[in-house]
Amino acid sequence: MINAHAPAVADDRADKILSRARTLCQPQLKIAVGALSEPLQRIAGYHIGWCDEDGTARSHRSGKALRAALTLCVCQACGGSPTVALPAAAAVELIHNFTLVHDDLMDTDETRRGRPTVWRVWGADDAILLGDALHALAISVLATGLPGGLVPEAVSRLAAASAELCRGQHEDLALETDASAGVEEYLQMVMGKTGALMGCACALGGLCAGADEPTVAALDAYGRELGVAFQFVDDIIGIWGDTAATGKPVGNDLARHKRSLPVIIALRSGGSAAAELAEIYRSPEPMTTARIDRARTLVEAAGGLAAARAHAARQARKALAALPSHVVSTDLEILTDAVTHRVR
Amino acid sequence: MINAHAPAVADDRADKILSRARTLCQPQLKIAVGALSEPLQRIAGYHIGWCDEDGTARSHRSGKALRAALTLCVCQACGGSPTVALPAAAAVELIHNFTLVHDDLMDTDETRRGRPTVWRVWGADDAILLGDALHALAISVLATGLPGGLVPEAVSRLAAASAELCRGQHEDLALETDASAGVEEYLQMVMGKTGALMGCACALGGLCAGADEPTVAALDAYGRELGVAFQFVDDIIGIWGDTAATGKPVGNDLARHKRSLPVIIALRSGGSAAAELAEIYRSPEPMTTARIDRARTLVEAAGGLAAARAHAARQARKALAALPSHVVSTDLEILTDAVTHRVR
Repeated sequence: MINAHAPAVADDRADKILSRARTLCQPQLKIAVGALSEPLQRIAGYHIGWCDEDGTARSHRSGKALRAALTLCVCQACGGSPTVALPAAAAVELIHNFTLVHDDLMDTDETRRGRPTVWRVWGADDAILLGDALHALAISVLATGLPGGLVPEAVSRLAAASAELCRGQHEDLALETDASAGVEEYLQMVMGKTGALMGCACALGGLCAGADEPTVAALDAYGRELGVAFQFVDDIIGIWGDTAATGKPVGNDLARHKRSLPVIIALRSGGSAAAELAEIYRSPEPMTTARIDRARTLVEAAGGLAAARAHAARQARKALAALPSHVVSTDLEILTDAVTHRVR
Repeated sequence: MINAHAPAVADDRADKILSRARTLCQPQLKIAVGALSEPLQRIAGYHIGWCDEDGTARSHRSGKALRAALTLCVCQACGGSPTVALPAAAAVELIHNFTLVHDDLMDTDETRRGRPTVWRVWGADDAILLGDALHALAISVLATGLPGGLVPEAVSRLAAASAELCRGQHEDLALETDASAGVEEYLQMVMGKTGALMGCACALGGLCAGADEPTVAALDAYGRELGVAFQFVDDIIGIWGDTAATGKPVGNDLARHKRSLPVIIALRSGGSAAAELAEIYRSPEPMTTARIDRARTLVEAAGGLAAARAHAARQARKALAALPSHVVSTDLEILTDAVTHRVR
């Protein structure tokens, strides 16, 4: 299992930034979700972590709210008041949650944040409808919450990111059965699946602060590179992560023969570990704990972990380098650092 | 089988209005869909009727474009140029198509417009992703195509309609297993599933013409009532319609034990036909052609067809009565008439 690499003090500061974003966004999210009819409202509350299956209010583990935090921190870094950016922060979180609900269904993922996924509890139809409704709510929050003059560009950017997420998820599903895919194809998929929305979150933060077009474009680039770093770390956690921290079954990605970054790198490394790993991935045999452990050992032996870590660190540096020089923010540096050193 | 009841000349005029709307919208739709990545772009083209499964360009039967026609006709009736409303017309068609793709999957409908549905050809994952992408495109077309000052209200209305469609579809699925549902519950479901988007189509037409808020609200009400009339006629066609005209298997709704308006009315009529129909709907026996024919006869004998026709006609009158007195449009009257007398 991996451990946190960052000094405790940095993690603590990132936790505070994320926690503040969650607290600031919650009222907007509650109002938005409150506009849904039952039972979609209750299912949304369950998914976000506000209640049990039966609607009993109870605080469960929620998402990190990294995207919302990026929007708010970028807005502040550009001299804007985070209050103006709150609808944008809530909107990106709603889009994120819409894609989680649909992706869990498509990926047949059974567990999220330590609890059964929406489709597992309510079935595929409700998962599709909840995702669709959250998608609509996200747009609604943005169009009604931002100053009118910002709405056309903000909505265009969010809708474009949403379409790009679909492209990325489609490529992700296609990669599962494509043994020939390399790091380049993988990077392009991740740019859609994870980069687009993080880029949009940052761009919207700048837009809300009244930043000029080149600055907004640079912020978008920062968020995209950071998003790719985030996904690379996600891939590491998906193999070496701890269930207690992630809320997902350990070795889930290996069990499902997922071709995540460390696996792609390992499979293309050309040694005996690569050959044995390829054999395990080709075999229809069930992935027992022993086979998962063996696959994990092989990916690491073939250099998959070290290379994936190096890729993630390089992405984080690319992200910071994309930040406009006049946007100076300790909070963004802390968040960027936390993304590459997170364990969940 | 039902026949067209309207004089041929009225149908012919409606066909011209719809055909013009399709022609006007097509370039906007082509540009929007052209922004999708492959294979989603090709799947969208197949669904809309532009190409075969393999992408070969070929004109297949397309949707009626009734919603687009409403947007354009309302805009013109309010003194606006239809050109301004084109992005709105394209956007409502895209939302409509997004819901068709998702609904076909949820309803496990195998045929649309005489061809296999998207999920039948490409599977559930691609159907989910295409629907999501069309949803995003719809918002994108509206936010980038309308004059900036109109965008906040237009997008808010479209997103609200989209969320209401989810509510309606959820209630529709719930009604399938609810033997106690009456006409009231059914009407509320239809207002979400069909009324909301037609109301939005009309409201956006008014908005694009610069109509004032009370006028836009009245246009929304007109479209909603018309949408309900449309669904009631859809229910009639779903039982008594002709496959050649509808592109769907004959008696499809009865075969699936769907509780559409004529069935609900028949089941609650209290006579011997109602009892026999209830027995057929309760039975797990396969719906052979003979059983479908028998169910159809029973629904008609129990007054389901006559009452549904009366409901549809009343809805059409309610729709016209909701039109603001200063919005006078022969085209809208022709469309309203065509909705209640259509056979597909």
